[in-house]
Amino acid sequence: MKPHEAYQRLVRWSKEITTIENIIGLLRWDQSCYMPPKGYKHRAEQISFLTMEKHQRLRDDRIEEWLEKAEEAFHGDDPHSPERANIREWRRWFLKARKVPLEIAKEIARVTSEANHIWEKARKENNWKLFEPYLEQIFSLKTEEAEALGYREDPYDPLLDEFEPDFSSKDFDGILKILLPTLKELLERILENPVKIDSSCLYRHFPIPLQERFGLLVAKKLGYDFDAGRLDITTHPFTVSISPEDVRVTTRYREDDFSLSFFAVVHEVGHALYDQGLTKDYWGTPAGMAVSLGIHESQSRFWENMVAKSYAFWKFWYPSLLQYFPILTDVPLETFWKALNRVQPSLVRIQADELTYPFHIAIRYEIERYALKKDLKVSDIPNYWSEKMEYYLGLKPSSFVEGPLQDIHWSVGLIGYFPTYLLGNIYAAQFLSRMQRDLGGDIDKFIETGLFGIILGWLREHIHQKGSRFLPKELLEDVTKSPPDPSFFVKYLKDRLGSIYNL
Amino acid sequence: MKPHEAYQRLVRWSKEITTIENIIGLLRWDQSCYMPPKGYKHRAEQISFLTMEKHQRLRDDRIEEWLEKAEEAFHGDDPHSPERANIREWRRWFLKARKVPLEIAKEIARVTSEANHIWEKARKENNWKLFEPYLEQIFSLKTEEAEALGYREDPYDPLLDEFEPDFSSKDFDGILKILLPTLKELLERILENPVKIDSSCLYRHFPIPLQERFGLLVAKKLGYDFDAGRLDITTHPFTVSISPEDVRVTTRYREDDFSLSFFAVVHEVGHALYDQGLTKDYWGTPAGMAVSLGIHESQSRFWENMVAKSYAFWKFWYPSLLQYFPILTDVPLETFWKALNRVQPSLVRIQADELTYPFHIAIRYEIERYALKKDLKVSDIPNYWSEKMEYYLGLKPSSFVEGPLQDIHWSVGLIGYFPTYLLGNIYAAQFLSRMQRDLGGDIDKFIETGLFGIILGWLREHIHQKGSRFLPKELLEDVTKSPPDPSFFVKYLKDRLGSIYNL
Repeated sequence: MKPHEAYQRLVRWSKEITTIENIIGLLRWDQSCYMPPKGYKHRAEQISFLTMEKHQRLRDDRIEEWLEKAEEAFHGDDPHSPERANIREWRRWFLKARKVPLEIAKEIARVTSEANHIWEKARKENNWKLFEPYLEQIFSLKTEEAEALGYREDPYDPLLDEFEPDFSSKDFDGILKILLPTLKELLERILENPVKIDSSCLYRHFPIPLQERFGLLVAKKLGYDFDAGRLDITTHPFTVSISPEDVRVTTRYREDDFSLSFFAVVHEVGHALYDQGLTKDYWGTPAGMAVSLGIHESQSRFWENMVAKSYAFWKFWYPSLLQYFPILTDVPLETFWKALNRVQPSLVRIQADELTYPFHIAIRYEIERYALKKDLKVSDIPNYWSEKMEYYLGLKPSSFVEGPLQDIHWSVGLIGYFPTYLLGNIYAAQFLSRMQRDLGGDIDKFIETGLFGIILGWLREHIHQKGSRFLPKELLEDVTKSPPDPSFFVKYLKDRLGSIYNL
Repeated sequence: MKPHEAYQRLVRWSKEITTIENIIGLLRWDQSCYMPPKGYKHRAEQISFLTMEKHQRLRDDRIEEWLEKAEEAFHGDDPHSPERANIREWRRWFLKARKVPLEIAKEIARVTSEANHIWEKARKENNWKLFEPYLEQIFSLKTEEAEALGYREDPYDPLLDEFEPDFSSKDFDGILKILLPTLKELLERILENPVKIDSSCLYRHFPIPLQERFGLLVAKKLGYDFDAGRLDITTHPFTVSISPEDVRVTTRYREDDFSLSFFAVVHEVGHALYDQGLTKDYWGTPAGMAVSLGIHESQSRFWENMVAKSYAFWKFWYPSLLQYFPILTDVPLETFWKALNRVQPSLVRIQADELTYPFHIAIRYEIERYALKKDLKVSDIPNYWSEKMEYYLGLKPSSFVEGPLQDIHWSVGLIGYFPTYLLGNIYAAQFLSRMQRDLGGDIDKFIETGLFGIILGWLREHIHQKGSRFLPKELLEDVTKSPPDPSFFVKYLKDRLGSIYNL
């Protein structure tokens, strides 16, 4: 076999795996949006069938030989060329798939499928003890998985690497060490501050059909292509790529809460703009794929927070908003904008403001690390959670539902996932700083005149179109000339909150 | 390998093929209902990927051995037992898949994918010549396919057998020979008759949301389980099984046409009741699958025509209908019912009444047979069509769109499919006759009191739950003690139209 032929075989193999993943995406989307209730059992079988088809391909005996052969063809090229990056990533896929014994993978699939069901029940009944044995099994299986994958320092690392390649717990510890004390101090200054923000205007009556129309209007203006996407309603908002030209988002609505749906739409559209902006010529290969969950989250957070919670954004949109919702007529733009940025410690992660959000992640991250190493017993998680919550935010959950039963992640086996949420914030601030530099200072001038295309253009060129050609840290370095650094995020928060709270 | 083990392997193989078909079902449903326009290209690739996965399994080298071994286990059983029927049907699948060379199958997939596109364009432009070369290729490939599949008397037979197993063109000729002259005579008597039916009440203003609510109400009452199904909107109504507990239907609406959507809903619900009524324990094997398109169509026609166009049906529903659509208040039940059953020769098959419908099928069937044998040139189809249409119904199409460009079937390679529509009518009348006998005379007494469960119960017991354990002709024989016989359909038509047209 010639080197180029080996490469072409790998491309076909990679595209087939992507096609399977895309079909699974549709099966999940349908399950959340339209599937009738009794369809549940067979849908699980359909997804599990395709998942096994994918796994079989990932473990294909011939891949190793093809990879070695293909490498010969591109040996002298730039390591970030699409071909060399593809070979690097394919090797990662293949090695990982080979390392985890099929029995562990199957057992994790089996246990999490049941555990997720039990978690839903436990949440309804506020019953931690019901969920506990399942979570014990999950942590124990995940430790096994980590051992199988192998690691240098910490069993957390190979799990985190699944979601954020080449990123270690040591890297993340370094970030938290700088970030948490600074934010804690900032939070204390805000809470002691006499300035209080009234956010009641966000909880007036907002008819759902109008929320939907306004959301569609904004999504379109931000650059989301509805000929290659759509917006539906689900309990938990998400984005799914069914193909590079079919990237769908979902949201949920409450008549008495403007932010709930609007910022979910902008957040998911941020994800979708990334997926719609990947290079179509490289579709089905890593060079045409999103690089990590952290970078993905940086895109959603960028649009949700940096853009859509800025004063400039509402300077542009507020007149339209008042036409949709005349009930806000008595609310000055300034009041509305401040309400959106109000800092208020709370027990629930997904309701957290930008400043208190990192503490929610820190608690989950610590628990995951200790539980994986068996330094924390699963039965002690609720107590640990309460203590940490009180330490960081001065609040104590009065129920398990407000505590460790609030997130779906652990029940479906996502351990090592939470850090990527915070990395998203940190990367986003770093990208913002670079973008401002590249675009000649503050980007507010584009936002307040609705020139979102300029911002999207920058993200497309510097991030989206690069796919997975750079590893996340390399991409940060390449774009911002700096490694991941939380100081950009701190500066961004101080700027925004400073003007609101007169700090 | 032990015989029972071989059988269990075949069951797993059969279920995997069914799972693939179900996933393809969802991909197609989504394509028609919700997919954004740009998703088209990748959707075609996703479907083609799964179709090849299915074909590979159907041709699996090990199947022949498993079949032989499995037969040993059930040798002495009833030939209609689930196991023996499964082995019989699996053998049919396997032999068929093996006989057609992969190149022909691929070429048909390629040509029809393009041809369907061209057909849409040709329809828009009323341009037969545009479509002609593609249809030539399709007929020629289908002749090749028929040769590969093999036949005794007519190349049409193996194609018809795809949709109606064990049913030959000779069988169908026998039916047409009796049916057409009788219906022609009946039609002439009706057209010469001084009684004229005014159907204008069906074309008043019927708001779409109310049509939808009324359709849902009726579908539910007929027994359609909405926890295992749903109703959406598409250009062409259809039913799709995504799993035995997820059988979806679609319809379309026109504000100025009551029948268009209502009878589409009842028709598709008839299909869905069959699929929802298959034996779940046999899911994924022929014993739990619909047996043929003709039997499937008999279920949709039974509910659409025998039940929902009966006087008894509207005796039950008309009061509700008037509440939904007060615009009908001045229309007596009798007038409304007669309007639904009006006989009126027309050029378009899907608008045809029950009496003229068979002629539309006859024309298509004749053309297919002659074109396959090359006794009719594709370029001569429009002329042949016009002549036949004038002979049967006294009408001449003024455009190709009203002629041979009206149906999608040929463009997607469905040759040998049309007869099953007419067989559906014939079987349905035959089932009706037997049902009346079993249930103690006329079933109107159940219909007019809304006891649809009794009718559904009979269909479940005698048809749905038998899956493919009997071949279609055997099923007819088993249930009605008669081979397929058009005289039941003629009698049914004479009864219904006789009372409307005072014949």
